[in-house]
Amino acid sequence: MPRVRVILGSRSDLAACEPVKQVLADFGVDYDFHVSSAHRKPEETARLAKNAEAEGVQVIIAAAGMAAHLPGVIASHTVLPVIGIPLASGGLGGLDALLSIAQMPPGVPVAGVAIGGAKNAALLAVQILALQDPELRAKFRAYKEKLAEG
Amino acid sequence: MPRVRVILGSRSDLAACEPVKQVLADFGVDYDFHVSSAHRKPEETARLAKNAEAEGVQVIIAAAGMAAHLPGVIASHTVLPVIGIPLASGGLGGLDALLSIAQMPPGVPVAGVAIGGAKNAALLAVQILALQDPELRAKFRAYKEKLAEG
Amino acid sequence: MPRVRVILGSRSDLAACEPVKQVLADFGVDYDFHVSSAHRKPEETARLAKNAEAEGVQVIIAAAGMAAHLPGVIASHTVLPVIGIPLASGGLGGLDALLSIAQMPPGVPVAGVAIGGAKNAALLAVQILALQDPELRAKFRAYKEKLAEG
Amino acid sequence: MPRVRVILGSRSDLAACEPVKQVLADFGVDYDFHVSSAHRKPEETARLAKNAEAEGVQVIIAAAGMAAHLPGVIASHTVLPVIGIPLASGGLGGLDALLSIAQMPPGVPVAGVAIGGAKNAALLAVQILALQDPELRAKFRAYKEKLAEG
Amino acid sequence: MPRVRVILGSRSDLAACEPVKQVLADFGVDYDFHVSSAHRKPEETARLAKNAEAEGVQVIIAAAGMAAHLPGVIASHTVLPVIGIPLASGGLGGLDALLSIAQMPPGVPVAGVAIGGAKNAALLAVQILALQDPELRAKFRAYKEKLAEG
Amino acid sequence: MPRVRVILGSRSDLAACEPVKQVLADFGVDYDFHVSSAHRKPEETARLAKNAEAEGVQVIIAAAGMAAHLPGVIASHTVLPVIGIPLASGGLGGLDALLSIAQMPPGVPVAGVAIGGAKNAALLAVQILALQDPELRAKFRAYKEKLAEG
Amino acid sequence: MPRVRVILGSRSDLAACEPVKQVLADFGVDYDFHVSSAHRKPEETARLAKNAEAEGVQVIIAAAGMAAHLPGVIASHTVLPVIGIPLASGGLGGLDALLSIAQMPPGVPVAGVAIGGAKNAALLAVQILALQDPELRAKFRAYKEKLAEG
Amino acid sequence: MPRVRVILGSRSDLAACEPVKQVLADFGVDYDFHVSSAHRKPEETARLAKNAEAEGVQVIIAAAGMAAHLPGVIASHTVLPVIGIPLASGGLGGLDALLSIAQMPPGVPVAGVAIGGAKNAALLAVQILALQDPELRAKFRAYKEKLAEG
Repeated sequence: MPRVRVILGSRSDLAACEPVKQVLADFGVDYDFHVSSAHRKPEETARLAKNAEAEGVQVIIAAAGMAAHLPGVIASHTVLPVIGIPLASGGLGGLDALLSIAQMPPGVPVAGVAIGGAKNAALLAVQILALQDPELRAKFRAYKEKLAEG
Repeated sequence: MPRVRVILGSRSDLAACEPVKQVLADFGVDYDFHVSSAHRKPEETARLAKNAEAEGVQVIIAAAGMAAHLPGVIASHTVLPVIGIPLASGGLGGLDALLSIAQMPPGVPVAGVAIGGAKNAALLAVQILALQDPELRAKFRAYKEKLAEG
Repeated sequence: MPRVRVILGSRSDLAACEPVKQVLADFGVDYDFHVSSAHRKPEETARLAKNAEAEGVQVIIAAAGMAAHLPGVIASHTVLPVIGIPLASGGLGGLDALLSIAQMPPGVPVAGVAIGGAKNAALLAVQILALQDPELRAKFRAYKEKLAEG
Repeated sequence: MPRVRVILGSRSDLAACEPVKQVLADFGVDYDFHVSSAHRKPEETARLAKNAEAEGVQVIIAAAGMAAHLPGVIASHTVLPVIGIPLASGGLGGLDALLSIAQMPPGVPVAGVAIGGAKNAALLAVQILALQDPELRAKFRAYKEKLAEG
Repeated sequence: MPRVRVILGSRSDLAACEPVKQVLADFGVDYDFHVSSAHRKPEETARLAKNAEAEGVQVIIAAAGMAAHLPGVIASHTVLPVIGIPLASGGLGGLDALLSIAQMPPGVPVAGVAIGGAKNAALLAVQILALQDPELRAKFRAYKEKLAEG
Repeated sequence: MPRVRVILGSRSDLAACEPVKQVLADFGVDYDFHVSSAHRKPEETARLAKNAEAEGVQVIIAAAGMAAHLPGVIASHTVLPVIGIPLASGGLGGLDALLSIAQMPPGVPVAGVAIGGAKNAALLAVQILALQDPELRAKFRAYKEKLAEG
Repeated sequence: MPRVRVILGSRSDLAACEPVKQVLADFGVDYDFHVSSAHRKPEETARLAKNAEAEGVQVIIAAAGMAAHLPGVIASHTVLPVIGIPLASGGLGGLDALLSIAQMPPGVPVAGVAIGGAKNAALLAVQILALQDPELRAKFRAYKEKLAEG
Repeated sequence: MPRVRVILGSRSDLAACEPVKQVLADFGVDYDFHVSSAHRKPEETARLAKNAEAEGVQVIIAAAGMAAHLPGVIASHTVLPVIGIPLASGGLGGLDALLSIAQMPPGVPVAGVAIGGAKNAALLAVQILALQDPELRAKFRAYKEKLAEG
């Protein structure tokens, strides 16, 4: 049963989000993976968000570029914490996606990470899941110690 | 029967959108008016967008500040043209809302106007409706001539 | 008789605007196509804008980079709805063109799309024309459904 | 025992962070509250971060303006999830704080919210804690439903 | 006979442009003064630009805010040097107007000054006129010396 | 005797300023050409500015990147009109140079052109010189007409 | 004999720079104080920079707004370390001044502090002077400890 | 005994900081060199800062990209002057790093140089050390004279 649901706004974001998969796999966290544009596939996107809780998902990671509405749209349909990854695309270097993800209105939070911050999005999901999973917390602590030695 | 549907993301946007009402009234264009946040009320927002066409609406105007997803979310649920008004709110002066509205991905257009451009949003709706309404076009032409005499 | 007039500010914008032609062709919408700088050819540009209505044009799409005045200049000379495409050119990644197109003053709207948003400009024109053309609306609805299945 | 630790970079941020207290109190989430600049009080700040886990804290919320290093510095000293609130201060409207919080390097995530997004920071903390607290999740679900009723 | 023509995009720019009048008067340079929006009054604006040379004008100063097309539009219709003053208006602090004036395409220059730089626009006009007017150059030299004594 | 003095802040700006030479040569305007950094060679730069008038120069064109102080520094030492060309260099795409050139304080104007606007800088110099040179004005008029036919 | 020379670009910057005086006085560091625009008084500004070393000055602090060339111009005329304070002025909130001060070209450094960072500029001067003044270092250490107790 | 300590936030910054080494070597200034991320290795980073003074270091140079907290974190742990080099990395061209370094809060200064300004950071360190080292000052003066002849 997936504990993390990863949703990308477009197939063209696959490479930029490869680190999400890699980190979750390294930490042994089950996830499922979807490509579903907030704008082109609003119904499917809403379903993925609404059904997540019942399907055992605990954290949703959503990545998108330009007017990156995906994480916010997902957050509007779920009580689960949503992590948003702004992706650089076109001439603004991701500033558009960063602002579209960061500047959510009061009531519906999204946890934003850096432009292209796929790795940190997954690590943040691990940190959140680790709060109720001592083994995962041990793994994360080991990861952090390795960083410090790195 | 309303030809234009106006949707605001928040009650706090009412003053900034007063010119929309005024222009539509001046041109004799029927409209209905809603406050429905894309994030706080996703279902109601989707309904307003989906039902618009069947209810005779021809153009939707949506206004929002910050991560202004509202126009894009509405556009995802309708075949009608959607006009987006970015509103200034907070320290970025509306740049966040402008980028969130302007930078829509391929496939789902939003017609963006200026930050705080409520008047122009309504005039653009009038121009669009005027394509099939000679009387309205005459009014718009008169308006434009009056501007030039200014 | 062309229903859409497409105007580019420079021959160097041809590649970036190829999707305009493609989308209009896909939807079977007749258009004519011009290269006419607002600054280098002000008279020709004004003529293209002023004559559009009489020549049966219903929507004008204008694309330009840098201080992208073209859509605004065209809008000043016509009652038709004008769609503006900001193009990236030089170090600012299109932010200059986006602001020059989006920030139109009250009275003369331009419908702005994303930086490089040629495809959406054409789709927006289709949405506008479809309001009075049931067949075109059916095509657009089909397009939207295909996107959602995509 | 506090489940959330709230840390402000400066006494001058107290008013901007009042909603953090209010939301946590509304949801019945125990928290402790500190003012400790990352730069002026690095040792105390590090202690607050390092001791948090042992003291039962599960989520840390940190708010700062300008070169808002506080959330990142705290994240460097703990395995707990850290939520960062960029605060507007001075002429850049909070863009400096937003970038300083959002653009964290790979390995050490911070969950960024909007400029001045104190309310959403607290709600995000609630969402994270609710993953292991059915009562809290019920409260959050009720909150979300009330939002939708508006 | 006016040697400088001053054109404002809007009556609301009058106060911001008062220094233009004052400097030109101080230097004894004749000017005429117009309010004519590039977008609302394109024909009058074009006329003001086209007729300037025949009417003895040697330099045109144009001021506008937001998508400040006025100086560029004027430059498209005259061989005279055109000085553009970007004005702050709305949330972007004049960055929109600055880029719309500065980023003119090759072939049609505008001489841009600072946001709100009305005084410098007039001084630049004086410097240009002084090239063929020894008395004016002496006055400008005296002005410059007085600045240095400050 | 040179009528235009061209000064570059760095040898690395030579390619970007080639159009200055070309345009001035095309219009038959004599110029001299210098590389002299405002910061590395302040004395030589000041000399070039101070001596310009006595040496018959009428317009100075200065180009620089990053904190492009060169045009402003030159303007501080001469009564002649100074045209500034901001050059893109490094990650900010020339925005730094544009602001450093555009935002001159009251009393000391610089005529700013676009980022990388070498061609327009030269054309602006031609327009200024043409005010007292009927032959040059005829050439510029011909150039402008060719643009319009272009 | 002053060890620090403080130079402001304009009388209007006096209030913003009051903390410079206060900090230097608190630390018992002698300084002299000047208002001298880089652009309006280039000769006086150059003299202040050139003479500083011979007059016993060891650090120069320069503050300016808009196209804040002052610190860079001073740095071009001295071997002493120069600290630059960008000041907010006008609509860009000091971003213009920050970039004009920070983006100095290779060879001529300026030590930039925050927009409006008058206090830190003085503290940085103290830190530099303290390298050769054990008493001053003790004072700075005490200051830093008091901050930490704060 | 090293007089300058150079700290990089990441191994990937080595190439961008090569000029630091080169300049210090050219001036015969001893330095030591470390890679230590503020976030991944907070303890080691703090140790490098805290021990610097006792180890004879007089100036610290720290370079980092993105949310470049490194220089500020180091400054929080030492009374020595700290020079910060913002590095470009990702789509924002270094603006994020520049703001994270420049916008330090009152009490803890960092001397910021240009984005990628490794050379100037080293020269600034030399200028500071030269205040108490006549031989070094002579070398710097010679360097400055060579620049001016350059």
